[in-house]
Amino acid sequence: MIATYEPDGPIPVAVAGATGGVGQRFVSLLEAHPWFELVALAASEHSAGRPYGEVVRWSLPGPLPARAAGMEVLPAGPDIPGRLVFSALDAAVAGAIETELARGGKLVVSNAKSHRMDPAVPLLVPEVNPGHLALCERQDFGAGRIVTNPNCSTIALALALKPLCDAFGLRAVHVVTLQALSGAGLSGPTGFEMTDNVIPYIEGEEPKIETETLKVLGELGDDGLHAAELRLSATCNRVPVVDGHTLCVSVELGREADAADLIEAWSSFRSDPQHIGLPSAPARPTLYLAAPDAPQPRRHRDLERGMATVIGRLRRCPVLQWKFVALGHNTLRGAAGGSILAAELAVARGCLA
Amino acid sequence: MIATYEPDGPIPVAVAGATGGVGQRFVSLLEAHPWFELVALAASEHSAGRPYGEVVRWSLPGPLPARAAGMEVLPAGPDIPGRLVFSALDAAVAGAIETELARGGKLVVSNAKSHRMDPAVPLLVPEVNPGHLALCERQDFGAGRIVTNPNCSTIALALALKPLCDAFGLRAVHVVTLQALSGAGLSGPTGFEMTDNVIPYIEGEEPKIETETLKVLGELGDDGLHAAELRLSATCNRVPVVDGHTLCVSVELGREADAADLIEAWSSFRSDPQHIGLPSAPARPTLYLAAPDAPQPRRHRDLERGMATVIGRLRRCPVLQWKFVALGHNTLRGAAGGSILAAELAVARGCLA
Amino acid sequence: MIATYEPDGPIPVAVAGATGGVGQRFVSLLEAHPWFELVALAASEHSAGRPYGEVVRWSLPGPLPARAAGMEVLPAGPDIPGRLVFSALDAAVAGAIETELARGGKLVVSNAKSHRMDPAVPLLVPEVNPGHLALCERQDFGAGRIVTNPNCSTIALALALKPLCDAFGLRAVHVVTLQALSGAGLSGPTGFEMTDNVIPYIEGEEPKIETETLKVLGELGDDGLHAAELRLSATCNRVPVVDGHTLCVSVELGREADAADLIEAWSSFRSDPQHIGLPSAPARPTLYLAAPDAPQPRRHRDLERGMATVIGRLRRCPVLQWKFVALGHNTLRGAAGGSILAAELAVARGCLA
Amino acid sequence: MIATYEPDGPIPVAVAGATGGVGQRFVSLLEAHPWFELVALAASEHSAGRPYGEVVRWSLPGPLPARAAGMEVLPAGPDIPGRLVFSALDAAVAGAIETELARGGKLVVSNAKSHRMDPAVPLLVPEVNPGHLALCERQDFGAGRIVTNPNCSTIALALALKPLCDAFGLRAVHVVTLQALSGAGLSGPTGFEMTDNVIPYIEGEEPKIETETLKVLGELGDDGLHAAELRLSATCNRVPVVDGHTLCVSVELGREADAADLIEAWSSFRSDPQHIGLPSAPARPTLYLAAPDAPQPRRHRDLERGMATVIGRLRRCPVLQWKFVALGHNTLRGAAGGSILAAELAVARGCLA
Repeated sequence: MIATYEPDGPIPVAVAGATGGVGQRFVSLLEAHPWFELVALAASEHSAGRPYGEVVRWSLPGPLPARAAGMEVLPAGPDIPGRLVFSALDAAVAGAIETELARGGKLVVSNAKSHRMDPAVPLLVPEVNPGHLALCERQDFGAGRIVTNPNCSTIALALALKPLCDAFGLRAVHVVTLQALSGAGLSGPTGFEMTDNVIPYIEGEEPKIETETLKVLGELGDDGLHAAELRLSATCNRVPVVDGHTLCVSVELGREADAADLIEAWSSFRSDPQHIGLPSAPARPTLYLAAPDAPQPRRHRDLERGMATVIGRLRRCPVLQWKFVALGHNTLRGAAGGSILAAELAVARGCLA
Repeated sequence: MIATYEPDGPIPVAVAGATGGVGQRFVSLLEAHPWFELVALAASEHSAGRPYGEVVRWSLPGPLPARAAGMEVLPAGPDIPGRLVFSALDAAVAGAIETELARGGKLVVSNAKSHRMDPAVPLLVPEVNPGHLALCERQDFGAGRIVTNPNCSTIALALALKPLCDAFGLRAVHVVTLQALSGAGLSGPTGFEMTDNVIPYIEGEEPKIETETLKVLGELGDDGLHAAELRLSATCNRVPVVDGHTLCVSVELGREADAADLIEAWSSFRSDPQHIGLPSAPARPTLYLAAPDAPQPRRHRDLERGMATVIGRLRRCPVLQWKFVALGHNTLRGAAGGSILAAELAVARGCLA
Repeated sequence: MIATYEPDGPIPVAVAGATGGVGQRFVSLLEAHPWFELVALAASEHSAGRPYGEVVRWSLPGPLPARAAGMEVLPAGPDIPGRLVFSALDAAVAGAIETELARGGKLVVSNAKSHRMDPAVPLLVPEVNPGHLALCERQDFGAGRIVTNPNCSTIALALALKPLCDAFGLRAVHVVTLQALSGAGLSGPTGFEMTDNVIPYIEGEEPKIETETLKVLGELGDDGLHAAELRLSATCNRVPVVDGHTLCVSVELGREADAADLIEAWSSFRSDPQHIGLPSAPARPTLYLAAPDAPQPRRHRDLERGMATVIGRLRRCPVLQWKFVALGHNTLRGAAGGSILAAELAVARGCLA
Repeated sequence: MIATYEPDGPIPVAVAGATGGVGQRFVSLLEAHPWFELVALAASEHSAGRPYGEVVRWSLPGPLPARAAGMEVLPAGPDIPGRLVFSALDAAVAGAIETELARGGKLVVSNAKSHRMDPAVPLLVPEVNPGHLALCERQDFGAGRIVTNPNCSTIALALALKPLCDAFGLRAVHVVTLQALSGAGLSGPTGFEMTDNVIPYIEGEEPKIETETLKVLGELGDDGLHAAELRLSATCNRVPVVDGHTLCVSVELGREADAADLIEAWSSFRSDPQHIGLPSAPARPTLYLAAPDAPQPRRHRDLERGMATVIGRLRRCPVLQWKFVALGHNTLRGAAGGSILAAELAVARGCLA
């Protein structure tokens, strides 16, 4: 029996890497968060010292929150205030800064890749592997902790796979992604490259999915985490979509099952975030749509406030066993929203110093 | 040893279904064809009797050929003139009309699906299964013949697979397509549906690929055609691309091989159309690009005048054995251009009455 | 002094033409409306008798409201229940049905074009011409009334022009639109037509803007409405944008002014809907953005919940006097949202039977 | 009477700035040019010394010409070989390098903006102002010469206006552009910015059109060039189109005319390039399409091999006098193709040292 949780008072938090696409999502989602109070925004040196509203190139549909707009941007370093720091830092600098922040006693919840594969760092998808938070006890940052988020595609995929794993076992997964542009940031492909085109390559993405998914689905033993043992192949494409990664997935399960069993596994899936009542938890972490042409990024990415993996088109796969299409919102559940949910779980589990 | 071939004089040909997207490609490609002389254009009743230039909504980049523009559109029926009829008719009417045309002694080369799976009708990809033309001898249309083209994705896929089949054998194929809009025609998705979106479903497309590919790769025995025995899974997506289907392919071969062996198989692949010197034959039916992000539809679909399958990104697949990306131009090689090449082979092989 | 207004209790309303794009917006916006209670959904014969959730092809980002999903669709005719009917009917049938509904005593608030130019029917943009509601007294439908909404581009344009009219007078307007696809509906251009393309033509749209804007900006005299006297030229383009019409506007004012005066006119503009406190009224009906590249459809269409005209790029026009860019959300303020605001004003002004 | 012209033998030419989008167009168009023989490719320091095929990121639909692919890239500087140098250099460096090349005795034909407004440098649109080449006599580069190309939108606009100027006079022009992405190069908007969006701003573009057009349409007197006297207003938008700028133009003519007169003026327009028979000259520099929704970038940009301005939708303008839509291919006629045509005219006129 899992108890619901409510913190004693507002928790001061900061966002490091606040000007990029994921940083903006953090700012937007934290504006009215019931637990977290945004006290600082940090970014690279050339933005520091100026009001956030002047340095950010706001690209989300809603308006830039007025309070954040007025906050002075701090340099991203170990002196960021707040008990909890959300990191959307560039991978080039994230590793060192996050380590220093943790050593300074903070709970760091990171969307950067630097610490994802560290043996003592949980790679957390709260509904999938909440128990991995126990890994934090193996960290040596003093009172501080680092918790990470997998990459966007891995989050959507792991959510779709977990109910199948639990119910039927899982032997092999073949996934081909059609990924949105919001994840690529300012260094992403140009409009010239993406008009009347798709790009069948995203640097570094396929190995990330193939590696991170196995860690997320792994088992925590006395001697640490054991990666899941299953064959996993990922192919990644960039498509001209703003938000929402579409995944064409084929799976081989551990035992025979009916289509109805798989759909029931997804439809009934609930986990710790739902039981605890975490504020960012979707009511349904995985949901199945019966329409023949669902899910689609523009039409379905915002279901469950962008925090679920939306699934459809379940049918037999002549090569593996089953195939289906899964959709995840890459900057909500797949990045900032996923990190905030991870932070909520970490706080509820006592990871805050 | 295969001899080159040249017909004695111009062969009068007609296009049935001339106003649609594929019909327009036929008109464009036949304008300056060295063997075929366009003598008639046929379309549905409501276009008949008027000049082609008035009824067609020309949507190809180049100008509408002046001679075709002035031709009076005929009703699509058994009285179409010409010794050879290219059919881009709607599936709803193609079957019956094509049968009548063949009974009238014509060689019908069809891009419609109606006769594709008939046991005595070749489903021809000239470089892949030229020998299947011998099936025509089993037809009972008198002097007439029907030869068909597979659907656009199957053509691109079969070309990519054939050199692997020949060199290494093939046990399983898993393909996920990102298909262009030109194939969908006027009944395709709206601009509203396709902006900031992909649609992970194309009605009827997956079964077509799974069935037609096995026929194309099949063996012709004394008792007819035997479909290839391999596991084949297809998943189809519609993406906002004008022309060019991108295929993410994973394969399990019949024996171990190096990447260099596969690339060599594609690079050196030549077949009857190249040996005979057919006018529409690409110099290289399959070609491999080494760039890490190739092939891409807009950048590479027009290589070899749109008549080749362009391949890239060969790498190990953790679930099957190898994976790669293949690209085919869906209205050139995948439709009108493929039919014209098929017609050239059929003529060279004496199929004309 | 204008008094705020609050109705005595919930007002039962229906939506006619509920399955199309604008109809869906009505359903979405009425779900939690503080005054209006949705009691009926009507559509064409072939949808009637089935649950809304089964017949609608929902295409908005949020989920289909559960209550509406379960409502049985009624045939669109004079027997629709409710005191107020929102009409998103096709122009082909809207005229007659709306007349009958009004004769049956209902307040009809229509987004269709059929009655827009009727001399006794207000063409209402609530902030621009609230006084035009008095035209209703000239109607002869008994207790019923018809109030209409201009077309989407006219609404955005009229809002941008009104503060200039009031402050400086207006002699000439030249507008070139870049219009989104959501307004075109299912009969809009195909994805094939809209990829790597713009279409410099929207059937019937330019005359609508040139005519309707003059009525909206007209003066109500004792002898009826006098259209505004100004030269107005409209050119319309369709662009691959989901929602949000961009208007490139040049104006000649009645007197000289500074840029700061124009910006102040837009920034301070408030009208009856703001004074009365209508629930759908934007706090700022017109707002000016200083960024050099604003407004942009995806980034700014949702400001003020899509109910404002967002303006930017004010600069001198060497041909007329000033030029600027205006942006309006075409299915929110430009259609369903605009109609609901019009209905709120009409109810507050006592137009309900 | 203008005589046709043919050079005595091949003229050795170089391309400076060969790796960018316009540079690639030069390489493509020069591959089989009847007069010019490509002898050198130059680019920035970090590309110099390596084969062109290795350093260029080829993004045109056809294949990279094999001969060019093997040429070693030279540093862009005064030592480039060839009698004629086509410059597609960045504006940051173009000015100085072009001056040095001219001083070295070369004929420089530049697509860069650096020298466009120099009083002694022709801003040449060969059909519009061929006589401006006489300006070269005022240059003081010794035997060398500099001839420039206006920016892409100006070229398309000037072509559309010239026949009207000649036949009716011209008092005012109001143009709103919808510009393609190919002109923006690698520093253009990202795919994220351009999906489901338009950007109503292109830095520096409006002043260029407003200034350059007046120079192109100006009159050459004994005391130099006099800019045309007409009011001209330009508004520029970026849209998700690969190639082809669409211009919504309103004009006030010097005298009354019928629509048929304007169409005849465009249809019959021929100038020096057509009379001389320059190899890159379009048969029809301006052509009018009668379809109600023409011209469109994807459907019509390649007419006349991308070297014409395609016009449509002529109708009355209630503010000025007439309005129409014009389309020009921005990297063919609007850049590399226009420069090559300008070079052909300059050579035919004896500008080569």
